[in-house]
Amino acid sequence: MERPLTTVHRRPARSLGLALTLSLGVTSAAVFTSSAAAQERPVLRYVPKHEELKYTFGGVAPTHHIRPGTRIVSWSEDCYDGSVTRPDQLPSKVAPIGHDNPQTGPFYVDGAEPGDTLAIHIEKLEPARDHGISSLFPGFGALNGTDRTAMLHADLPERVWFYEVDKAKNVVRTKSADGKKSWEVPLAPFLGCLGVSPPFGEARSTIVPDNFGGNMDCPEVRAGNTIYLGVRVPGGLLSFGDGHYAMGDGEIIGTAVEGAMNVELTVDLIKKRETPWPRIENADWMMSLGAARPLEDAARIAYKDMVAWVMEKTGLDQADAYQFVSQNSVAPVVEMVDPLYTVLVKIPKARLPK
Amino acid sequence: MERPLTTVHRRPARSLGLALTLSLGVTSAAVFTSSAAAQERPVLRYVPKHEELKYTFGGVAPTHHIRPGTRIVSWSEDCYDGSVTRPDQLPSKVAPIGHDNPQTGPFYVDGAEPGDTLAIHIEKLEPARDHGISSLFPGFGALNGTDRTAMLHADLPERVWFYEVDKAKNVVRTKSADGKKSWEVPLAPFLGCLGVSPPFGEARSTIVPDNFGGNMDCPEVRAGNTIYLGVRVPGGLLSFGDGHYAMGDGEIIGTAVEGAMNVELTVDLIKKRETPWPRIENADWMMSLGAARPLEDAARIAYKDMVAWVMEKTGLDQADAYQFVSQNSVAPVVEMVDPLYTVLVKIPKARLPK
Amino acid sequence: MERPLTTVHRRPARSLGLALTLSLGVTSAAVFTSSAAAQERPVLRYVPKHEELKYTFGGVAPTHHIRPGTRIVSWSEDCYDGSVTRPDQLPSKVAPIGHDNPQTGPFYVDGAEPGDTLAIHIEKLEPARDHGISSLFPGFGALNGTDRTAMLHADLPERVWFYEVDKAKNVVRTKSADGKKSWEVPLAPFLGCLGVSPPFGEARSTIVPDNFGGNMDCPEVRAGNTIYLGVRVPGGLLSFGDGHYAMGDGEIIGTAVEGAMNVELTVDLIKKRETPWPRIENADWMMSLGAARPLEDAARIAYKDMVAWVMEKTGLDQADAYQFVSQNSVAPVVEMVDPLYTVLVKIPKARLPK
Amino acid sequence: MERPLTTVHRRPARSLGLALTLSLGVTSAAVFTSSAAAQERPVLRYVPKHEELKYTFGGVAPTHHIRPGTRIVSWSEDCYDGSVTRPDQLPSKVAPIGHDNPQTGPFYVDGAEPGDTLAIHIEKLEPARDHGISSLFPGFGALNGTDRTAMLHADLPERVWFYEVDKAKNVVRTKSADGKKSWEVPLAPFLGCLGVSPPFGEARSTIVPDNFGGNMDCPEVRAGNTIYLGVRVPGGLLSFGDGHYAMGDGEIIGTAVEGAMNVELTVDLIKKRETPWPRIENADWMMSLGAARPLEDAARIAYKDMVAWVMEKTGLDQADAYQFVSQNSVAPVVEMVDPLYTVLVKIPKARLPK
Repeated sequence: MERPLTTVHRRPARSLGLALTLSLGVTSAAVFTSSAAAQERPVLRYVPKHEELKYTFGGVAPTHHIRPGTRIVSWSEDCYDGSVTRPDQLPSKVAPIGHDNPQTGPFYVDGAEPGDTLAIHIEKLEPARDHGISSLFPGFGALNGTDRTAMLHADLPERVWFYEVDKAKNVVRTKSADGKKSWEVPLAPFLGCLGVSPPFGEARSTIVPDNFGGNMDCPEVRAGNTIYLGVRVPGGLLSFGDGHYAMGDGEIIGTAVEGAMNVELTVDLIKKRETPWPRIENADWMMSLGAARPLEDAARIAYKDMVAWVMEKTGLDQADAYQFVSQNSVAPVVEMVDPLYTVLVKIPKARLPK
Repeated sequence: MERPLTTVHRRPARSLGLALTLSLGVTSAAVFTSSAAAQERPVLRYVPKHEELKYTFGGVAPTHHIRPGTRIVSWSEDCYDGSVTRPDQLPSKVAPIGHDNPQTGPFYVDGAEPGDTLAIHIEKLEPARDHGISSLFPGFGALNGTDRTAMLHADLPERVWFYEVDKAKNVVRTKSADGKKSWEVPLAPFLGCLGVSPPFGEARSTIVPDNFGGNMDCPEVRAGNTIYLGVRVPGGLLSFGDGHYAMGDGEIIGTAVEGAMNVELTVDLIKKRETPWPRIENADWMMSLGAARPLEDAARIAYKDMVAWVMEKTGLDQADAYQFVSQNSVAPVVEMVDPLYTVLVKIPKARLPK
Repeated sequence: MERPLTTVHRRPARSLGLALTLSLGVTSAAVFTSSAAAQERPVLRYVPKHEELKYTFGGVAPTHHIRPGTRIVSWSEDCYDGSVTRPDQLPSKVAPIGHDNPQTGPFYVDGAEPGDTLAIHIEKLEPARDHGISSLFPGFGALNGTDRTAMLHADLPERVWFYEVDKAKNVVRTKSADGKKSWEVPLAPFLGCLGVSPPFGEARSTIVPDNFGGNMDCPEVRAGNTIYLGVRVPGGLLSFGDGHYAMGDGEIIGTAVEGAMNVELTVDLIKKRETPWPRIENADWMMSLGAARPLEDAARIAYKDMVAWVMEKTGLDQADAYQFVSQNSVAPVVEMVDPLYTVLVKIPKARLPK
Repeated sequence: MERPLTTVHRRPARSLGLALTLSLGVTSAAVFTSSAAAQERPVLRYVPKHEELKYTFGGVAPTHHIRPGTRIVSWSEDCYDGSVTRPDQLPSKVAPIGHDNPQTGPFYVDGAEPGDTLAIHIEKLEPARDHGISSLFPGFGALNGTDRTAMLHADLPERVWFYEVDKAKNVVRTKSADGKKSWEVPLAPFLGCLGVSPPFGEARSTIVPDNFGGNMDCPEVRAGNTIYLGVRVPGGLLSFGDGHYAMGDGEIIGTAVEGAMNVELTVDLIKKRETPWPRIENADWMMSLGAARPLEDAARIAYKDMVAWVMEKTGLDQADAYQFVSQNSVAPVVEMVDPLYTVLVKIPKARLPK
């Protein structure tokens, strides 16, 4: 995995005590390992209690303060707040309103200030349950009327699918309502939500993706990738949740194969680097994400950011970078069901001008 | 002005003492008049200090608790947070970031709970300064690239227009940059912002219009009209600001003729009536407002709400109401520059089926 | 009615014979009056036979050649191709597919060339039947799924409303399906379609509005107004149809109160004046029309055209004109049901800078 | 390559004489091979003269009549009508207006009638020149103002890039304007345009994609794939052009690496099968294409068509098919620069429910 371009700030291991001190007073106990490895990289092991989960980006106190470089070994609840436990339970009946996509965190990153960037290296994501859940929720989805694309039709009926997690075969599997057909989807775990706090006192619902990350529902927020989020408030206030075991482009029914997730990630801090919109990177790809409506505006944001990124990396002028991106980008529709729609623009690094 | 259809709850005057008690502990002193009139309708006279202004809907403590039926006699600062005092000052240089559309309030309405509706009767709006201000702000507007409709063009240059308020002639008046031409716009004061708190811990920037009202930039939020906003949190947390002395449909340059405003309005509470999207009413018109992107979704919201309102008022079935609204609505583009765009759908009451 | 700003070319009356000659070979007989008035303005009286009606803008031969300045006294069939004659007939059953909005014409305007503009002065529009018709058509409308805003819902059921034309009271009147309620809409006749041929061999369905005019569904295409359409092909090939007796902003059910229309209009030719998008003018207003999706793009087109028009008329620079239009425009949603949506931007001439 | 699901109609070889007869009277000579192979599959070898190229879908006479099953061995001109031959030539100066994307054909497929489907098997696409061309055209592109997304900014400056075709390395290669950097894009030839005539007398510009195919700019219109287009007029009137040597998702600068193309494809006819929107298929994938604005409507069309296709193939009910597509689709933004935007939805056949 390629490291960030600018210097990464990690507090030296000797400041571990300070970090412990700073984490006092927050709502949950942090357990730091003291192995030799931890001398290199502090580790926070933390499984939130249900009452510690958060339902906004911003507006909530951090559960922990962490030093830059901290590896977080944790867990996240599913998008239904853990309320759906049997296939005969309709989310509209059992899931508490306003409790979508519960967040683990937020984590206050020591030293992070507006104008900096968090680099989140996702190291491991594993389904924490033996089943994932998807559902057709009335008034939510890309092919039905919603509160915004308001239609006079009656709602489509609610339905729930339970997917069995088959780790041996590396798939999830479900059946049709009549039991006659079944299908499998390759396991491809990612975090639907990864975000920091918006600035200026805003607090946003955890169903919202925006320039601060949030409910991006982006399959590239997966193990092996680094996500860059611009810091908007002191400490950044990073949180994550909404584990997806698998999802197709667009997430058109409104939900992925949703499930609780075991999460391991390391949070680095890049000082004095602004990141207006989320970027994702690995050894092979650079990726920019935009969120907006209509969908072309989401794409415009991501493409424009990529043009700027290519200019930074290569020294091309704007028109050449526009041309380069135009011929080399891969651009999936990520989701078109959340309050803002999401598009990802990807460039293979091997093609960058030389 | 037509009164709300359902029973309005106003605490009897004898509960004034209680209201005073409830308002203790809030950040600003409330002065209730004790005239005979006030026996009917409590009055809160309040001019906020600058440090009391708010920059979000939600997420902030109320300045006052008020009883239903309270008349608020107050004042609001302009959209620039009062920072632009001379035509040679560029807002991008002098206006503090994140301090757009400062709010007076919020006001906690005693007894208001989710599922209720606030009915805000606007009684008087008067320019509080002898000049209004408009500006072309880089990256903001309907005919230039923005952070969402991202373009590679260089920004249009910033420019500021001061408008003289001519109360005798009832117009505002400004000049072209070269001083050769001048134009007048009839004074038509309204509040760009009038909103309650969103639910579930959200706090939204004061540049955002949504189902909770907010920065609707709607010329019908004017003296003589009643605005209905659905209560989302206990007390509702009503606030207002962003006075507009005049504005064309669309607000395409991104700003109206902006200015501080003297404000008089009365807040009534309608129990057990949900108002999913803002409605406005006077003797002649019923109006529904939608906010979304793309613009057709804003319109869909407003039209669908109006179809429902007509069904409620007349007993028409859905198809007949759809037909009726289709032939009788007046539907201006309200603004297409804020994070969500706004459309108003108006029906003349005189045409309602009989 | 204000006359066009630039010189209008009308062939002198002595060329009447030539016009007659040119009209030979076309499919229908033209009758020119030879009164003294006609010395000033040739008159074409023409009621098309059904088989002469057209279903595209472009791609069809003219029915007549006319001299600039010709007054056309004519008639247009309703949007259903005249196929619905009783309330129990569903358009989806009786209206021939592809025969929406039949056109009278097209008229070849002698001397009109690309780069010129036609100025169409509408002098009289009168309902030609004693009833108008509206309907909810499956898969068509602003609040139901369509072929473009594709939804999985079942279609809303088809329904037809007949409106009685009450000329004495100057209204149309209909009833609810259960017969219990009735409503009236003021008669406000206009032409839903008025268009020229697109260029470069294109021929567009008569349900499409675009820069060549077409199915604009704009209430300002009414008696007393002048519509300017840019000529795209030799002769322009002007046609009209789709009479509306009344319509609300947005035409959200997909149809106005539709009906056959008696039409009187005069066609002038303005040489060497380009009109990229339709403009409309009368003594009090100047109006620009845009057609696009999403709706904000329709608005952008109209606003940008108005900024340019104000610059032409007043000499303001672009930023001043942007500011002026922003504070003075009236901008109704015209329709949001056709293949492109339509927005009109209106400026009161009395407010133009001096 | 999987063959169409329903019976393919190919006229038996003995009807060759009839085909020859039918092709009489068209504008260009067809040469049918008479080898044993041709007994199986008639071959039309045809390189159009420049004056035979077409600039609309619909509204033009066929160059040839062909029997179903005919293999066409042909050639197409580049999108600039062949007018740009040196890098210092600006398309806006040398390319004739209205002559974008010249088409080879159209071909009248004997026996094809509305309600049928053409299955076009693309067998070979090879760059016919040693260079491809791309350009930034003023007022065209995803990140600049256009005639529809109208902005007040000055146009971005026009620029042209010539790409060298390196067949040995299987790439195209160009340089930055300052000559300091170069980049390569893998050769991935496809046809930007492949379309039939729209119905009801319409003729559409060759820059337009729609339900009849047209300027889809879709990289999956490539060798090895079968494209299904619904027949709208007798004979279908199939044409193709606008060869792309390579293109990124979105085609954001407005042009791919454009070039003349050697084309080999076979046209089969599937009787009595409607194809409302283009479908593409190969051994591994089934793909649906939508074209609309805003971009989410393009996606909705493609997703809804895929839901229907999955229902047809598997017998799933609608909700199950919606769920299946939601978890398994791949959905790139195809282009967002043409009059309608294009999204492709792809499902891997191996995942279909069993």
